[in-house]
Amino acid sequence: MSSFALAYERFGEPGEVLQKVPIQPERTLKNSQVLVKYIASPINPADINTIQGVYPLKPASFPAIGGNEGVAEVLRIGPNVKSIQVGDKVIPAPAATGTWTTHRVLTEKDFIVLDKNVDPLFAAQITVNPGTAYRMLQDFVKLQEGDSVIQNGGNSAVGVYAIQLAKLWNIKTINVIRDRPDVDELRQYLKSLGADYVLTEEEIRKKEVMDEILSKVGKPKLALNCVGGQCATDCVRHLADGGTMVTYGGMSKKPVVLPTGSFIFKDHRFVGFWMTRWSKANQTSPKRIKMLSELSQLNSEKKLIIPKTIQVKLDDYKEVFETIQKGFSNSKYVFTFE
Amino acid sequence: MSSFALAYERFGEPGEVLQKVPIQPERTLKNSQVLVKYIASPINPADINTIQGVYPLKPASFPAIGGNEGVAEVLRIGPNVKSIQVGDKVIPAPAATGTWTTHRVLTEKDFIVLDKNVDPLFAAQITVNPGTAYRMLQDFVKLQEGDSVIQNGGNSAVGVYAIQLAKLWNIKTINVIRDRPDVDELRQYLKSLGADYVLTEEEIRKKEVMDEILSKVGKPKLALNCVGGQCATDCVRHLADGGTMVTYGGMSKKPVVLPTGSFIFKDHRFVGFWMTRWSKANQTSPKRIKMLSELSQLNSEKKLIIPKTIQVKLDDYKEVFETIQKGFSNSKYVFTFE
Repeated sequence: MSSFALAYERFGEPGEVLQKVPIQPERTLKNSQVLVKYIASPINPADINTIQGVYPLKPASFPAIGGNEGVAEVLRIGPNVKSIQVGDKVIPAPAATGTWTTHRVLTEKDFIVLDKNVDPLFAAQITVNPGTAYRMLQDFVKLQEGDSVIQNGGNSAVGVYAIQLAKLWNIKTINVIRDRPDVDELRQYLKSLGADYVLTEEEIRKKEVMDEILSKVGKPKLALNCVGGQCATDCVRHLADGGTMVTYGGMSKKPVVLPTGSFIFKDHRFVGFWMTRWSKANQTSPKRIKMLSELSQLNSEKKLIIPKTIQVKLDDYKEVFETIQKGFSNSKYVFTFE
Repeated sequence: MSSFALAYERFGEPGEVLQKVPIQPERTLKNSQVLVKYIASPINPADINTIQGVYPLKPASFPAIGGNEGVAEVLRIGPNVKSIQVGDKVIPAPAATGTWTTHRVLTEKDFIVLDKNVDPLFAAQITVNPGTAYRMLQDFVKLQEGDSVIQNGGNSAVGVYAIQLAKLWNIKTINVIRDRPDVDELRQYLKSLGADYVLTEEEIRKKEVMDEILSKVGKPKLALNCVGGQCATDCVRHLADGGTMVTYGGMSKKPVVLPTGSFIFKDHRFVGFWMTRWSKANQTSPKRIKMLSELSQLNSEKKLIIPKTIQVKLDDYKEVFETIQKGFSNSKYVFTFE
């Protein structure tokens, strides 16, 4: 059994500080220990920021193994393990256990068992992006069928899941994207996922455009914001009185600018969502298990589609991080292990 | 009985559109009607904005009588009135009934009876400013004794009540004010009301100053914002993780600018408070009656002091509004009727 991991001993650029190192998983499992073999582990933007040392989530100690999400198969279990069987497909329950590794030994309570038939590429990415979309649509505003939601970054990793889940739950979505040469292609793609309206940042500033849409779907009670800056303010302008904006990203690197009247006269609420905090508070809570099971089920029924992912090998990590850092690709990279 | 009111038939500057007009209160009261004689009615900034037509609260019809708050004495009651007696001190329950008037006839349910011994100058102003401070300290964060609150506009009409109520409830206050020639005098005044710390907008930007204060009282769980702009952002920087900022004004006329990390990593919440909305939803609710009774009680025990008010006559309204509009005075003007 050849075992390797991508580990780092200091903060820095992933391509520089990560090293492929041999690891030695315990041969004899004690008590509640579980040995797993990773199948697929994605590279999320937060993983890169963690390695750079600029993310609030820090590794417990060095050397640390990179990666936060992933799906694995159980190879062996310790004598006291009750809820996990050899062959189970599992994901790690805590954050930042290190998933860019061929093998890992953790204890029983550190894993959540998924349906054996789940698509590994979906399972590997289930907690962060689909989970964030699911929670933001569920936890902040009591949405009813026919209600509308506005979101910017409509084509973001979370945005495409929000579109799909909203469609499944009969919630209308108004999706804002940046203008680009292939904007009509992107519009078509998001509509094929279930988006009701796809508008550029310029279009949502046009009163006549938005008046017509809002006359059909009503003012959104919920806004999802991963952009900040002018685009966030523009979304707030259309929010229903008493509505909530949930901020989960700041891709423009600009702050959220909110007019006073929005707070006082429109009774808008502004909150944030961070999956790392939610997962920590709900590691193996019934709420989390229910969500993961629902999401897996929807994916296996082909109702929840994974956006484009590119499978890469651990061995090629230097090139992969170079490509990601250059920003040449919006696709999601996933390490897959044979 | 000579009866007059300050009324307006169109939106505009108060000094121009308001007119002192004779009114004829009903001589024979029917059913649940109540005739009151006003004792004192303050001029709030929102009253001026209402007359200008720039406030979300609009008069039901024209001509409209100005004024939103005030205390009155009951002169006569209709045959079906049960809960109100002649001689009672009352305040209007709904917003914008028109209080800049010597007399008014409304129905029983439109009045709330206060303790007969309440100071009329306090009673006249009880709903808006002390009420706003009370609700913001009670309704958004579960504060415990020893917790701290940060507020800007510490010397605002609401701010001085927040200082006093917090002191009574054993909540520490960090109060931010604008620098000014007589800043030390203002510091002393606010400390005499119970302020724990009074800092200028420049001082809260100094790490060493704030570090020392926060080491003593802990990071505030609640921030009250009536300024916006840079000062609001600076207050948010000191807010405890999971803390809430309540915006109830925007005196700088600048929006509230919030860094993305504040939402995501610090789990800050940003909401607004508008007493007009709260009062509408709680016109004669037990919550409101309890609050008014507590505030009256505290005032009669000299534990809750009214900031400086200037008593003026209805006849002098043109000069009064001229002075207010010129911004020459920060004092509160109150119409008093003999």
